[in-house]
Amino acid sequence: MNILIIGANGTIGQKVTAKLAEKHTIITAGRNGADETVDIADATAIKDLFERIPAQDAVVCIAGEAKWDYFKNLTEEDFYVGVRSKMMGQVNLVRIGKDYLKPNASFTLSTGVLADDPVVMTTSAAMVNGAIHSFVKAAALEMENGQRINVVCSGLVEDSKEKYEDYFPGHDPVPMPKVVNAYVKSIMGKNNGEIIRVNA
Amino acid sequence: MNILIIGANGTIGQKVTAKLAEKHTIITAGRNGADETVDIADATAIKDLFERIPAQDAVVCIAGEAKWDYFKNLTEEDFYVGVRSKMMGQVNLVRIGKDYLKPNASFTLSTGVLADDPVVMTTSAAMVNGAIHSFVKAAALEMENGQRINVVCSGLVEDSKEKYEDYFPGHDPVPMPKVVNAYVKSIMGKNNGEIIRVNA
Repeated sequence: MNILIIGANGTIGQKVTAKLAEKHTIITAGRNGADETVDIADATAIKDLFERIPAQDAVVCIAGEAKWDYFKNLTEEDFYVGVRSKMMGQVNLVRIGKDYLKPNASFTLSTGVLADDPVVMTTSAAMVNGAIHSFVKAAALEMENGQRINVVCSGLVEDSKEKYEDYFPGHDPVPMPKVVNAYVKSIMGKNNGEIIRVNA
Repeated sequence: MNILIIGANGTIGQKVTAKLAEKHTIITAGRNGADETVDIADATAIKDLFERIPAQDAVVCIAGEAKWDYFKNLTEEDFYVGVRSKMMGQVNLVRIGKDYLKPNASFTLSTGVLADDPVVMTTSAAMVNGAIHSFVKAAALEMENGQRINVVCSGLVEDSKEKYEDYFPGHDPVPMPKVVNAYVKSIMGKNNGEIIRVNA
């Protein structure tokens, strides 16, 4: 299988990429340090990416940013950072990519526990995650040529525990193999429109 | 209680306004035909609105649009119609309004069943509804001075049955009094961060 992974350098991306590379041909993409350069906040860059490497069997996106801050500090423009990147970036990846991927190909997007169980400073981050959940359920109804779409929604992952645990009081860290398996399930399974929630 | 209702002329807004007017002082706002003119897609207009009529006890928003079309027809700009209006419009209403409302005041936003149970042509509409659900849960954690925020998420409402039933095959229409009660619960109750789902 030919799999495009956007965000392969990230905490989760590294583990997912290592696992998928055991059996598949991987192309990585990202803002830097990847096989292909792309900023998902830029729809033109997404189109250029698929023009260069069409006909993938699967696209995995573990990228996209959103601004974290107290609600009282967030400006409208701060909200739009996440809107353009993690939200519309992932939407555009599907909207544009579906016309380039093979029949029966799959999209696997990424969100996180904030959509269901937010913490302080995440009004923007939670919002974009919730948006992607509902988008995936709706888009699944209209995928054509056997193409599928799912989203992996993991809790605080083990490899980010040290960095983020103070922001997620009482959240049980999710073992990395469980997170990786969620991506494998989305790519290799037949599910469509599933929010694959990964908890400890 | 002084209650500001944005979208009082709509199908749901009319019934909610009639009920609340029995016991409260209502100011209506909207793009036309209301006491106060406001387009929630414009943050400056929202700020101007609260400058004119600060110190409300409750704000109810039953307004905001999003573009309906098949996923394959929707452009990036089409998605941004809903992003600017129903999504960021409601976010900005809270973000700006919280500094003008009275202590213990409440915000009641509106979404719909599409967030959880989308139908064809709603990739954009579902997305903005899902975004608002997660936003409300996150914002509730940071409301100050006793202020609260909830969202009413109703299924296909009885009064829209004729107009929309072909888009919502098999959806049971929700009786209007149940929908109205959800708004009353949000405003008069003590709940905060609740997605008040109203089904038949």
